[in-house]
This record gives sequence, structure tokens and C-alpha cells, in this order.
Amino acid sequence: MKVLLDGHGGDNSPLENVLGAIKAVESSNDLEVYITGKIEIIEPIVKANYSGSKITVIDAREVITNEDKPTIAVREKKDSSMVKALRLCREDDSFAGVVSAGNTGALLTASLFVVKRIKGISRPCLTPTWPTVDGEKLVVVDSGANVDCKPLQLMHFALMGSCYMTSMYGVKHPRVGLINNGSEKGKGCELTRETYDELENMSDINFIGNIEARDLLFGCADVAVCDGFVGNVALKSTEGTAIAIIKLLKNSIKNGGLRAKIGALLLKPTLKSLKSTLDVSEQAGGAFLGVEKIVVKAHGSSTATSICKCIEQVVKLKENDVVAGIKNVLAQSRGNNE
Amino acid sequence: MKVLLDGHGGDNSPLENVLGAIKAVESSNDLEVYITGKIEIIEPIVKANYSGSKITVIDAREVITNEDKPTIAVREKKDSSMVKALRLCREDDSFAGVVSAGNTGALLTASLFVVKRIKGISRPCLTPTWPTVDGEKLVVVDSGANVDCKPLQLMHFALMGSCYMTSMYGVKHPRVGLINNGSEKGKGCELTRETYDELENMSDINFIGNIEARDLLFGCADVAVCDGFVGNVALKSTEGTAIAIIKLLKNSIKNGGLRAKIGALLLKPTLKSLKSTLDVSEQAGGAFLGVEKIVVKAHGSSTATSICKCIEQVVKLKENDVVAGIKNVLAQSRGNNE
Repeated sequence: MKVLLDGHGGDNSPLENVLGAIKAVESSNDLEVYITGKIEIIEPIVKANYSGSKITVIDAREVITNEDKPTIAVREKKDSSMVKALRLCREDDSFAGVVSAGNTGALLTASLFVVKRIKGISRPCLTPTWPTVDGEKLVVVDSGANVDCKPLQLMHFALMGSCYMTSMYGVKHPRVGLINNGSEKGKGCELTRETYDELENMSDINFIGNIEARDLLFGCADVAVCDGFVGNVALKSTEGTAIAIIKLLKNSIKNGGLRAKIGALLLKPTLKSLKSTLDVSEQAGGAFLGVEKIVVKAHGSSTATSICKCIEQVVKLKENDVVAGIKNVLAQSRGNNE
Repeated sequence: MKVLLDGHGGDNSPLENVLGAIKAVESSNDLEVYITGKIEIIEPIVKANYSGSKITVIDAREVITNEDKPTIAVREKKDSSMVKALRLCREDDSFAGVVSAGNTGALLTASLFVVKRIKGISRPCLTPTWPTVDGEKLVVVDSGANVDCKPLQLMHFALMGSCYMTSMYGVKHPRVGLINNGSEKGKGCELTRETYDELENMSDINFIGNIEARDLLFGCADVAVCDGFVGNVALKSTEGTAIAIIKLLKNSIKNGGLRAKIGALLLKPTLKSLKSTLDVSEQAGGAFLGVEKIVVKAHGSSTATSICKCIEQVVKLKENDVVAGIKNVLAQSRGNNE
């Protein structure tokens, strides 16, 4: 299988990106990675760290930065490592998909304009995986790509999130919950009340009703549906709280005298395992669903390990053909409505 | 000063409510508490625990439960402990305000219909205080009372939140931030983009621009403005994450062998102080702003300590006259616009 990797996106690019690609090809027999980017920068890193033939560098002369405005960047930087990877993916069906740790907005825009939307999908969505307390997985759709939504879009997010949970994690009949400000039917804002009725009538998803943001980490659902603004707030509140508690814990230990310091020392492996449970680099990247190809957004601060995981994620999603899955359910659901 | 307390609202009522009232009058010379509720239940608890004359029980024959539909409960249970407390407060200016730990929706509805809205305020809002990592305070307005909002309502939340931070915590020129999915101007959904422009033009608040949910616990602002749906998601995500991390930590300790257990034992006082920083009962109640009287919503799981704090909160807000403060700024802001 052939996967494309944007060589320049991410805080630790290009080094960690290249090392991630090497890690991926070395742990799989049937994988080739094509890295787009400035050949004079990328190739020496590859050569210094890898002697095999399963990594190819494709020259791209421009780089989209985090400061670039998405629409302008995509339009003007056609020969950027990101846009080039997406274009090659669209043009050549032998590529399974694309991984990029670059500018999220630009990646979404480019995926939409270069790779193209699946016909019938109202708006593509960003689907990061959250860990739960019980070691299970949760996807929150949408997590920031679409801030103003209508019920139809949330219906499509529910459908795509379900297909994703099945393709990526093998969950059969994923439980789909609607993030709301109360669990009873009838609760919510205009959007969630209308969406509730629509989701209830969809025969192709396993809708379990409203869920509250408080229960997301406790495995209350496999797929949590919301508009991208709410998804962004939920995601960032969760991240911020985790960071805040770890900071508070550190401060308390610092001010807790010798006893606390010895306690903390003894607890070190425990705290380390806790940190790894919460670590984003341990999780999959965010899949961008609803476009004709598999596009995975790696975290901006990705290391070689997370880049490698994102490449493996593309492989898995291609093997289980998530794009075809979405198209099938969409066709059935349209059939049901007719 | 005279404060009214709903004797029956809350999971631990009436016992903890009564004990909270006793705690409050015993720690202040100039305070009387009037408890509404079934006299045959409340009075024996008072008599068994208190011999002074600063607590009065006012008979009310009905109780609004958490299962009651707010509008119906308020209309049909006119002689409930909650509605009676609000009615007495409206009719008799010698009462400083009301504390209730009961059904939030019913309290908001009753405040609106019985106490009445401040003229010119589009919609009242719920204002709970959040702790920050640095030991400061933050209010998130609105935190759940109004799920579908327009820019005018968010402008009023900003204004009321500012007055509240000044009256309650003595913060001069509180920094007002708009919760958004990015910090740059121009980011956001329709509501936040429009609201940004309006807040920027308000001369009576200290608007500092967009803030992200990730930074709420880090003191990025004194007042965080959002619609009640988003406020609810931010609040509940934060709560859920805190609970999840504590659970994960406990599990890790449990599975971490003897070393982890000894470490945890040594760290016990440290973890306890961390828990108290995060404990809702250590925080003030949620003030319901924008009505003609001071109404404070105590947490549903309130203990005597938190009920006592909420009573003291009413006293403080009355001493610094938050209702007059809101009216003044509103009048000035109207003057500015004319």
C-alpha cells in the first residue's frame, strides 16, 4: 500500500515526519511512504536514517505555515507539500491516502477543493479519537471543521462517525449520542432539538439519544455528534482541564514538603502511565471524513511515533474502505427516504 | 440583613439547608435567615440544632422536585418553598435575596415570572464561579439558562458578568473575553463573529477579545461570555474531565502495586488539598443575574457549608448592590448609544 505524507506540516517537521515514515515502513512489509516537500531538505534526512527503498521523496517547492490563511494558501501555494500530496492522491488511485500535521484549516480547505467531497455529503467533518476512562474509544464529530451547522449536517456527521468507528475500531453498531445540555428528549437548543428528531428516524445508525459533555470520557457513546463549535469547546475544555489538574498536582507536590515529594517519587511510574493514557500522541490522528480519499490530520506537535500511527491509520481505513462504507450507507439512507 | 432560604431544594435538604442557615447566622451579627418549607419538618430541625432567634420558618405547603417541569411547577405550585421565598422577596424590600438549591429550571423560571426582569435586560443569565489554577476566579456567562442567543443577549451577559465580578470579588475593570474557536478576530460562528464587533464597541466593559476554552482555568479572563449551550458544554466537560482524571489516578494507584500505594498514602494531604481546590462546595453558588432581586442557585448536592456560603454571597451582593450596578451600567450604555 502507498501512503502520502506531507513532509513539512507540524511543529517538529520535517525531522519527526521523516522518522515517522521510516518507523512505519520498517514495521510493515507491504507499505511504501511518499513524502512531499523540499527535496534538498527531506532527502538528506531520509538517507541519514534509512537505507531501504520503501520511502520516496517527491519534490514540492512551497510550505504552508500555520500563519497562512487557509483559502489563500490553498489557492496560491499549489506546489506546497500539503496541496501536492492531496493532488497526487486524487489523481492516482494507487495512493491509499494522505497524512499531514500542518495547518488544520488549510488541510480541510485543500481536501475539500482538491480531493473533493463525496456526492451527497453536506459537509465533511474532522473526527479525532478521544480516550475514555475504561480504555475504549470515542469519536466526536464534528470537532471544529464546521462551526455553523444545520440538522442535515449533523445527520451526516452521525453517519460518517458510525462508519469510522466500524472501519477504524471494529465497533459493530456504534452507539451514536447527541451532545446536549440535558439527557431528556426535548432538551436543547433549536439545532439539537431538531437534530434529535432526525437522528431518531435514521434507520442506519444506532441512535441512543442525548448525551452530556460530562459523560464523554466515561464511554457514554461511541460517536458523539455536535456542531464544530461545540466540539471545539468540548475538546479544548477537556484538554485545558487535564493540563490544569496536572499543573495543580505539581504545585501541590512542590508546596507539600518532603512527605509529598517522596510520595510523588514513589508514584512516578503511576503518574507516567496516567500521562500516557491522556497523551494525544498515543491516540490516532483526526480523520477528515466526507471527501473522496482518506485524509488524516496528525497533531501539530506530532512526534515520529504519532506520524507513524497516522500512517498506519490510513492503511487501516483503506483496508476497511471507510470511503466506500460512507457511500453505501448514504445510498441506503437515501433509498430509505425515497 | 434578612435572607430567604428555600428549605426543600437540594439533594441533602432540608437538613443541610437548615444547618447551613444556622452556620450563617452564627457567624454574622447582623443576619437573619427566613426558611420557607413545611413547618412541621423544618422547625424541629431548627429547634434541635439552634436556640437563637435569628432563624424564622415560614410555612409553605408544597415542594418543587427535580422531576417537575419548570413552567408547570412554577404555575401550579404557588405555595412551594421555592416560589414562596421568591414572592416574599419581591413583595418585601427588607429581604436581601433568595438562596435555593432546588430545580435549576424552575428557579430560573420562577425568578423571571415572580421576581421580574430588570427593564432593558434582554435575558437573565446564570453565573457560576470557576476556580482558576492561580487561585483567581472566573465567571462564565451564560452557563445554561439561555441556549439560543443573539448578540444583544451576549452583550448583556458581558455587562452583567462585569458588574458581578466587581460586586462579588472587587475586581475593577474585569477582563471580558468571548469564548470562541480561535483567538484571532474574525474566527468563530455567526453568533460569535457578530458579538465580537458589538463587544468591541461597548465602552462600559473591558473587552479583551476572543478566548479559547482551553485557557479558561488559566485565568485568561475574569468574565467569559458565551451562550448557555456552549457554557453548559464547557462547564460539564471541565467537571467530567476532573472526575475522569481522579478516577484514572485512583485506578493507576490500585494497579501500581505496593510502591504506588505507599506513594499515594504519602501524597494523601496533597491530593486532599487538590480536591478542595476543585470542590464545587468551596465555590460560590451561581447568581441568577438580570432580575430585580438577588437570587443565588446553590449546587444541588449542597452541604451546610455551601448553603452558608451562598447566604453570605447574597449578603455581599446586596452590600455592593449588584442589581443597582447593572441598572446603572445599562442606563449609561443606553445613553452612549443614543
